[in-house]
Amino acid sequence: MEEESQIPKGRYAADISSINEAHARIKSLILKTPVLSSTSLNAISGRQLYFKCESFQKGGAFKFRGACNAVFSLNDEDASKGVITHSSGNHAAALALAAKLRGIPAYIVIPKNAPTCKIENVKRYGGQVIWSEANMRSREETANKVWQETGAIFIHPYNDGRILSGQGTISLELLEQAPQLDTLVVPISGGGLISGVALAAKSINPAIRILAAEPKGADDAAQFKAAGRIITLPETNTIADGLRAFLGDFTWPVVRDLVDDIITVEDSEIVKAMQLCYEILKIVVEPSGAIGLAAVLSESFQKNPAWKDCKHIGIVVSGGNVDMAVLWDSLNK
Amino acid sequence: MEEESQIPKGRYAADISSINEAHARIKSLILKTPVLSSTSLNAISGRQLYFKCESFQKGGAFKFRGACNAVFSLNDEDASKGVITHSSGNHAAALALAAKLRGIPAYIVIPKNAPTCKIENVKRYGGQVIWSEANMRSREETANKVWQETGAIFIHPYNDGRILSGQGTISLELLEQAPQLDTLVVPISGGGLISGVALAAKSINPAIRILAAEPKGADDAAQFKAAGRIITLPETNTIADGLRAFLGDFTWPVVRDLVDDIITVEDSEIVKAMQLCYEILKIVVEPSGAIGLAAVLSESFQKNPAWKDCKHIGIVVSGGNVDMAVLWDSLNK
Repeated sequence: MEEESQIPKGRYAADISSINEAHARIKSLILKTPVLSSTSLNAISGRQLYFKCESFQKGGAFKFRGACNAVFSLNDEDASKGVITHSSGNHAAALALAAKLRGIPAYIVIPKNAPTCKIENVKRYGGQVIWSEANMRSREETANKVWQETGAIFIHPYNDGRILSGQGTISLELLEQAPQLDTLVVPISGGGLISGVALAAKSINPAIRILAAEPKGADDAAQFKAAGRIITLPETNTIADGLRAFLGDFTWPVVRDLVDDIITVEDSEIVKAMQLCYEILKIVVEPSGAIGLAAVLSESFQKNPAWKDCKHIGIVVSGGNVDMAVLWDSLNK
Repeated sequence: MEEESQIPKGRYAADISSINEAHARIKSLILKTPVLSSTSLNAISGRQLYFKCESFQKGGAFKFRGACNAVFSLNDEDASKGVITHSSGNHAAALALAAKLRGIPAYIVIPKNAPTCKIENVKRYGGQVIWSEANMRSREETANKVWQETGAIFIHPYNDGRILSGQGTISLELLEQAPQLDTLVVPISGGGLISGVALAAKSINPAIRILAAEPKGADDAAQFKAAGRIITLPETNTIADGLRAFLGDFTWPVVRDLVDDIITVEDSEIVKAMQLCYEILKIVVEPSGAIGLAAVLSESFQKNPAWKDCKHIGIVVSGGNVDMAVLWDSLNK
């Protein structure tokens, strides 16, 4: 088969077989998220856009797919010890929810500067919150300490084949819901989402284009692609709190080989795209969730002759967990 | 047939036949809006809730159904003169959009205090905006002047059988999408929405309960029901700008006869319900759109033994057009 010749089994941390297995494992637990369209946004972008709304996924983000696949892949003995991760964001809540469904403990190390709404989600799903300082060293040390005490299984937010396979189930749904798609635009951070999506989509349709959407203030993927390898980079700075991670050694090879281009956008473009999502699509998205639309509307995409033929574009709206206290404060006045 | 004995043809301004005709007329023009559910909101309310998201309807509100039915009911001669209305809200944009689809002019008289986002919608759809003062007399006088100049056909926002029939198509969709529903909770203002919904739903299932959700600051329907007749009331005051109108003589008889109860809620309950819609359902709703959830969560509903058996509740989320400038300002800082 053509797809197997394109993406050999074992080359990457996941493949179409492991993604199909993940789908069979989690299908009854996840939400098959809807695909929305808008004639207004089609007119603005000059393309046909199909928004795959993972913001409606359980836990409010695509992360539940991978977390669910990881948790339900564990054998009973490992599972009984519980799971652990460190995350400031949607992976934390997703893992807590998946663990709750399996009836096992979830230990979640959260840096003190995490967004309130995401911490609330972890608590809502019964995750045990352990605080760390707001740097990676403290996060890892704290998680290590909890691991020594509990023996819980560590589930990395993205650098894990089970996570990639879970996220890849998005493509299985989306290419069935909108088989006419010629392009997918996917947010990129640690690379778990886009790797899973690319592996599945290019197996199903080798001609499909995979474009990554990345904030300029955290453009590690763009810089790695330009350099052809992982390089050391300074701190990130972007409004998209879900997109501040760097590619890992499980995700970089997939991004290097299967992602056709990285489109970087300014934070102001992300906010403008969020506003369009709220005002026209009427959906609540976080900055990371709106970046795909920002990329499609950006000059660097619109004016690039290479993407002139991208007519039917699937945009992964990755999450909807956003602090809107300022809005509620204003309405309660 | 049972439904015909319950709701005789000709008693009200619309009936199941006119609603079925409306559906055939507008089906290809409207969006069949999705029905969303949430295990979290089911747990909070102690019921199974089914949110009929008219916030996703074209124009951002259910109003497009009625406007579309009215505009496409006109004969060619009448249509050629265009349509006219006075409205501060979603009917204005809906009529502009329907007129645009038929290729005829729409003259929209808008009071100066209308919400910006709703004015923007009228302009987006090519409606010709004519300003009036922010009182009913100025609105009517201004509309009358435009009518004398153009001969355009006046389309009332709710006191019109074609409008009722269009709004009633919601029930045709919803009871097909969720046939297990035993209760519908519907926002009430001028009564066009709930009249159409009740006429269709009680024709399909005479046992279904129809509950109206109304702001305490504009509780004309509750007061009319208590008095058994239309009475004169003072000014309204509620955050729900879409729910400030009073029942008209076409809608009051339907509300009197077919609406089982009116549940009134405070503005603070509406804002709390909005917040749940954003944070849990991840949908953008205006205050009027969230009032159904507010009603279901209210003490007067939860503690009323008459509604103890309301287990499967359809909630009409009526619209999603809301000014969120405060949010964008904060994110652009």
